[in-house]
Amino acid sequence: MPLPNLFYAQSGGMTAVINASAAGMLHAARENRDRIGRVYAAENGVLGALQEELIDLSREPASVIAALRQTPGGAFGSSRFPLGTPQSHPHYYRRLIDVLRAHDIRWFLYNGGGGSAGTCVHVAAAAKAAGYPLSVIHIPKTVDNDIALTDFSPGFGSVAKYTAVSVREAALDVASMATTSTRVFVMEVMGRHAGWIAAASALAQEDGRGAPHLILFPEVVFSRETFLRRVQEAVKREGFCVVVVAEGLAVHNPDLDLPDSNDSGEHRHDRQNLHTGKAAPYIAALVHERLGLRCHFAVSDYLQRSARHIASRVDVESAWRVGVAAVEMALRGEHLVMPGLQRRSTARTTHWDIVAQPLSRVASRERAMPRAFISRDGFGITPACRAYLLPLIQGEDYPVYAGGLPRHVCLKKTKAEKKLPAFDIGME
Amino acid sequence: MPLPNLFYAQSGGMTAVINASAAGMLHAARENRDRIGRVYAAENGVLGALQEELIDLSREPASVIAALRQTPGGAFGSSRFPLGTPQSHPHYYRRLIDVLRAHDIRWFLYNGGGGSAGTCVHVAAAAKAAGYPLSVIHIPKTVDNDIALTDFSPGFGSVAKYTAVSVREAALDVASMATTSTRVFVMEVMGRHAGWIAAASALAQEDGRGAPHLILFPEVVFSRETFLRRVQEAVKREGFCVVVVAEGLAVHNPDLDLPDSNDSGEHRHDRQNLHTGKAAPYIAALVHERLGLRCHFAVSDYLQRSARHIASRVDVESAWRVGVAAVEMALRGEHLVMPGLQRRSTARTTHWDIVAQPLSRVASRERAMPRAFISRDGFGITPACRAYLLPLIQGEDYPVYAGGLPRHVCLKKTKAEKKLPAFDIGME
Repeated sequence: MPLPNLFYAQSGGMTAVINASAAGMLHAARENRDRIGRVYAAENGVLGALQEELIDLSREPASVIAALRQTPGGAFGSSRFPLGTPQSHPHYYRRLIDVLRAHDIRWFLYNGGGGSAGTCVHVAAAAKAAGYPLSVIHIPKTVDNDIALTDFSPGFGSVAKYTAVSVREAALDVASMATTSTRVFVMEVMGRHAGWIAAASALAQEDGRGAPHLILFPEVVFSRETFLRRVQEAVKREGFCVVVVAEGLAVHNPDLDLPDSNDSGEHRHDRQNLHTGKAAPYIAALVHERLGLRCHFAVSDYLQRSARHIASRVDVESAWRVGVAAVEMALRGEHLVMPGLQRRSTARTTHWDIVAQPLSRVASRERAMPRAFISRDGFGITPACRAYLLPLIQGEDYPVYAGGLPRHVCLKKTKAEKKLPAFDIGME
Repeated sequence: MPLPNLFYAQSGGMTAVINASAAGMLHAARENRDRIGRVYAAENGVLGALQEELIDLSREPASVIAALRQTPGGAFGSSRFPLGTPQSHPHYYRRLIDVLRAHDIRWFLYNGGGGSAGTCVHVAAAAKAAGYPLSVIHIPKTVDNDIALTDFSPGFGSVAKYTAVSVREAALDVASMATTSTRVFVMEVMGRHAGWIAAASALAQEDGRGAPHLILFPEVVFSRETFLRRVQEAVKREGFCVVVVAEGLAVHNPDLDLPDSNDSGEHRHDRQNLHTGKAAPYIAALVHERLGLRCHFAVSDYLQRSARHIASRVDVESAWRVGVAAVEMALRGEHLVMPGLQRRSTARTTHWDIVAQPLSRVASRERAMPRAFISRDGFGITPACRAYLLPLIQGEDYPVYAGGLPRHVCLKKTKAEKKLPAFDIGME
């Protein structure tokens, strides 16, 4: 009798290391060939699952694991598709169970953020209602670092490292030119609701001083006058000023009159989808108009979350480990859990244990940045925050290069034969 | 009798590897202690020379050479200060010669772009007129790749590599999300008059295909309709489209109605100083408004020219070598020359010889991108361009990291004792 099969899908926004989780998952599955039949990756996440577009990873050569580990983005495609709940969208869940059943899938591994943990809970409920035996495991991933019950979210460590390194490098450039050129440099980073990435930029400081001189968090009420005074003080003191601003600055400061620019499309009515690429120009224009200082700005946008070339080794290894652990948990018969990272620090080192966390608790919470991580003046981080962040950017994990460029995975993408009639998911 | 001294200064915009030239210069000077007394670096470029602010590099430990080699920005400070000519601003040149004479400087090494080569010519003329014996050597540096008589400008190879790697990584991210999220990603790169950096992004393509699908050069007349049609075709064919736009797009397309944003300050009347951070939002908004596609954009700004963490080894080594060669040329008694890189290609390898080029010819020309390097349709590069660019991004040259971040140089900056009265340079 053939062995049962394992399903894997990627969900939501990408990171530099989500494929490292896929690589870990695939490695562990191959180590357990005696128990796992085929490994199917859904093409474009849950969309591919509904459409029965399943990539048979068993057909990929072994070398694909190493290549996956160093490739940013989502190798099988991801999607942001609102699946709703079994109550609101029963046809989606019925179809999903039909596809899993048709391909004899017993393990459902879903690699995503907090929202995907909720989807996992719904899928498990639908399977149970249908009397279909399924083990559901969530693999954590997000640059936003907002997943509950894990010390950090794989993906965050690398964007943190990219941000700290980039800010430090750019600050050296600005510092050397400030006497006769740009005085203020503004860098916009991701973070619509939480300032985790903005906070990580503070790691660029030497002994907690220097650039970035000011961080603008979405969690903090923005005061133009205080901010401008602090910019002026930094320029007077050091000759220049580096500002890091989270794209979500205006989400919690809705009176800010941001210019219309990036992330146009889709949800014009949804303010929260309209902020990338607006905060930095706004701050730069404000500084120039009010202080008459020459400003430059950068918007790193997708560059920051795909920068695998400067990934954190701790992050890559953690991503790999949660991928491995997901398979091991599945084989142990665990269900509705997420491999979470649990920090264990000694005086000299930081380790992370992997602990199975209940998905019901992961799905219902969001990890906010503690207020105690933001300095009293609102423009920097506290020692506690630095102590939390610093271990996450340790180590480098360079991809192998060929001809001057990183060698990325190239998949055959052999599809599993479809066994069901086509399904209309209601997209154009 | 004390040995005569050597002067070094950095000029204009920074690169990721200008300090590698400084390191090479310092290394060669120390190898020739029997002929060179002290090495003085001007603080903030020519400004520091006028103000007699000279950093005595002889007082820095030997370890500073390795640290300089891996530090982006300008370690001694740079400036954009219009020195004019000995005719238009005789007091500047008189002062400069006074400072050089007061510190017994016989070798004047100036690390900059094409404009700085012109300054070298003027300094030499002023020294000659004053009867002061001075050997003047220009060390090439710019991310713009527009210096004449050198195969490429040190600094360009690293920004080229950063751009190609970043575009490839971001494209993987966009490709994996395009079904339900962003369809078009626009990345703005430097280049006000020449599309060299934009061209380098094409190295991200695999076998000349894929992302970036469209490059917008300042050299090409921008046609909205043709561009939009090509975007639509790419999205139809591949599901997504990556566009790289040079910040100078509007310089040669003055009818483009760019929004007001970055690089505000200083020269509001000077259109050419008002373009960073405007081209990408403009293109993204155009695509969204006309095609209804969801867009994201990035503006890499200073990040691209300071990204020492992903520098090209060829570029770092070339920067080092022109620094070494400048000292050797000075000691050989050469005058008014620049160490230029001359390409020597075989079937398998590319080498660069270093050749002394006459500064009179360097200063009077600007290296434009050959029209034959841009594809006939204006949106890509030709095989000749690819063959030229590819050798420049070969090899990696990672900085040493400490605690998760690159270790950068930290200078004592011991100043030479001032021997002259203060000089009013006419800045506030």
